[in-house]
Amino acid sequence: MKVHLMTVGDEILIGQIVDTNSSWMARQLNLAGARITGICSVSDDEAGIEHALADALWQADAVLMTGGLGPTKDDITKKTLAQFFGMPLEFHQPTYDRILRFFERLGRTTTEGHRRQCFMPVGATLLHNKMGTAPGMWFEKDGKIVVSMPGVPYEMEYLMEYEVIPRLKRFFPGFPIAHRTILTAGEGESKIAERLESLEDELPPHIKLAYLPNLGQVRLRLSGSQPDGEALERELDAYAQKVQERLGALVFGFETDRLEAAVGRLLQAQGKKLVTAESCTGGYLAHLITSVPGSSSYFKGSVIAYSNEVKMKQLRVNPQTLETYGAVSEQTVAEMVKGALELLEADVAVAVSGIAGPGGGSPEKPVGTIWMAVGDREKVLTRRIYAGKDRLKNIEYSASHALNFVRQFLEQ
Amino acid sequence: MKVHLMTVGDEILIGQIVDTNSSWMARQLNLAGARITGICSVSDDEAGIEHALADALWQADAVLMTGGLGPTKDDITKKTLAQFFGMPLEFHQPTYDRILRFFERLGRTTTEGHRRQCFMPVGATLLHNKMGTAPGMWFEKDGKIVVSMPGVPYEMEYLMEYEVIPRLKRFFPGFPIAHRTILTAGEGESKIAERLESLEDELPPHIKLAYLPNLGQVRLRLSGSQPDGEALERELDAYAQKVQERLGALVFGFETDRLEAAVGRLLQAQGKKLVTAESCTGGYLAHLITSVPGSSSYFKGSVIAYSNEVKMKQLRVNPQTLETYGAVSEQTVAEMVKGALELLEADVAVAVSGIAGPGGGSPEKPVGTIWMAVGDREKVLTRRIYAGKDRLKNIEYSASHALNFVRQFLEQ
Repeated sequence: MKVHLMTVGDEILIGQIVDTNSSWMARQLNLAGARITGICSVSDDEAGIEHALADALWQADAVLMTGGLGPTKDDITKKTLAQFFGMPLEFHQPTYDRILRFFERLGRTTTEGHRRQCFMPVGATLLHNKMGTAPGMWFEKDGKIVVSMPGVPYEMEYLMEYEVIPRLKRFFPGFPIAHRTILTAGEGESKIAERLESLEDELPPHIKLAYLPNLGQVRLRLSGSQPDGEALERELDAYAQKVQERLGALVFGFETDRLEAAVGRLLQAQGKKLVTAESCTGGYLAHLITSVPGSSSYFKGSVIAYSNEVKMKQLRVNPQTLETYGAVSEQTVAEMVKGALELLEADVAVAVSGIAGPGGGSPEKPVGTIWMAVGDREKVLTRRIYAGKDRLKNIEYSASHALNFVRQFLEQ
Repeated sequence: MKVHLMTVGDEILIGQIVDTNSSWMARQLNLAGARITGICSVSDDEAGIEHALADALWQADAVLMTGGLGPTKDDITKKTLAQFFGMPLEFHQPTYDRILRFFERLGRTTTEGHRRQCFMPVGATLLHNKMGTAPGMWFEKDGKIVVSMPGVPYEMEYLMEYEVIPRLKRFFPGFPIAHRTILTAGEGESKIAERLESLEDELPPHIKLAYLPNLGQVRLRLSGSQPDGEALERELDAYAQKVQERLGALVFGFETDRLEAAVGRLLQAQGKKLVTAESCTGGYLAHLITSVPGSSSYFKGSVIAYSNEVKMKQLRVNPQTLETYGAVSEQTVAEMVKGALELLEADVAVAVSGIAGPGGGSPEKPVGTIWMAVGDREKVLTRRIYAGKDRLKNIEYSASHALNFVRQFLEQ
């Protein structure tokens, strides 16, 4: 199936936001076996939307639109679509009832704008949007499909996953495509490519391997397509296993798994409680850990010691250590681990202290210098890494690295 | 001048990379007085590029293309453009000499691909690319312009700044465009729209107002265009001020400001130190605060009390309180604030405890129930909100709300 993506809204055309929706959608649709014929962004303007829609329908079997469905005046996508398909707009009581209940639960009241939002094109299928007030709309005409979704990323993602992609697959059945994703942490893309070189040469033409690196992790994706779906699944399983054998302990999971969830499983299996002591990551490491449902069963808490005072008073870092070696040092992170184990009565602790930037660098310790330590009551391991110059990236990269350090410690 | 942006390359259509070039270009072009009629991404495919180019030229005065100019085989933009404009390709010695010198300086040798790259459409103006090997190309036809640039961001940015934008300004002297963005937190889109309704009706046709909501914050954007640029700036300033007057304390900043930075400025101005005591947000609130450069001057740290034990032992929450009212209660968050102020010796503390989900909900306290408190040594304010059902959204929404609560507390 050929799919065209269209975003509606001036905020993209004036460069105020980056269109990350299209990228996410393209990735999911590719996984579902679709080919994207093009991506376009158009203004909140009737003539422009109509022109782009006609052009997109000429190129593709389905056009997926996002944006322009909110309760305020600048949203005209729905009106334009109703016109385009020659459908009248009618007030839709069930949608209004749903919005009323939604707001009641939040303890808030609705406005006239919400009522206006409930006029729907008669003949379109409404797609239930569990994440917000505006439903998606599904139009069929001459064997082609147009879908309109809200532009809010998590609303669009929900609709795509539970409504749009399953319907598209039923509407346009095709050649099976399948994937296996192997998740690694601890080595860069080129090192991994070296270890997989001869295996890549072995791959048959209908199976491909892609490298998707991000912040200290590399996802490896095997994709294949051939008429016999079951044979394809068996082939992919076999190659995924070979990749895993070659990479050994670098592999922490598969498919949509996350490093923080892998660490959680290890802690749970070993019956251990983790705590963090964070300086430069400022809580981001704890956030990653607690973003996993059920993390309260193995994560007790953290001390975010952004000031040296908190490092000394709470984590019992020796003032002499801070004076002699500085807050960003092997000695300090090791004492942070010991202090956190003691204070929060945990089995394993991880500590991070570094210079996230943009300020605070020096010739000996430039911006991006990060010390981290992991330990229990018996031993403490330390490690230094050099991240980059961008503050937010440094925080994310250090946290990802520290998580992997915990994983390695637990796997020993 | 009306400008259309086009990116060429499959890596965007399969969702492997996000198109950040178009966003950057749109922003710069808007500042230069251009209106973007649309943005599109097309495949490395002759027919597709020609079709999109014809369509873009029909809509706009100038089409700026990026991508598809490298030395590898799948790059066919140049060939397609030469065909489109009926220009023969000829070997261009000066470009080849420049590439040879460039590689000599790097101590590397060129390949056959680099020679192929030096065939240029006769009649196009070559734009000097100081950052790489492929020059930009400028085509003129029937009073319209097509520009082709490499897709590498810093090469494109160099060409845009020093070659393309100055030429476009000379070619299409025209109408300035300007924007004002007003940032709010604390009310939803529809409530704000109600308060601005009569002001929206007052707006002249050349000024528009757009609503951009996200996680408890709404950005309001005024955009305008008219011949007299200075008059336009004055008009926008006047309307931005009116918006601000109507919305009062909902407004926390302008343009690209962030709520966490606004809170930081208030703390700095009042000479106060902030700490957080987090349960369900698990460090995300501290992460937002410490994502601001220089936050160490007003942020001391946090206790992430994920377990009740840490709430009791570190934050001195009374076991009786936890027993009687539960961890997600007004009483608990109030005691967490007092405990954090004491323990971390701060001036202001904020505490959050809630049920992020998916587990842990009950009929009286469903998933999404969040209690928060803000206080100093004199008083503690509390508030309950209901977020949604998605764990990560609940964490982000609670943290954003808590930040705004701190702002309101400091502004009293």
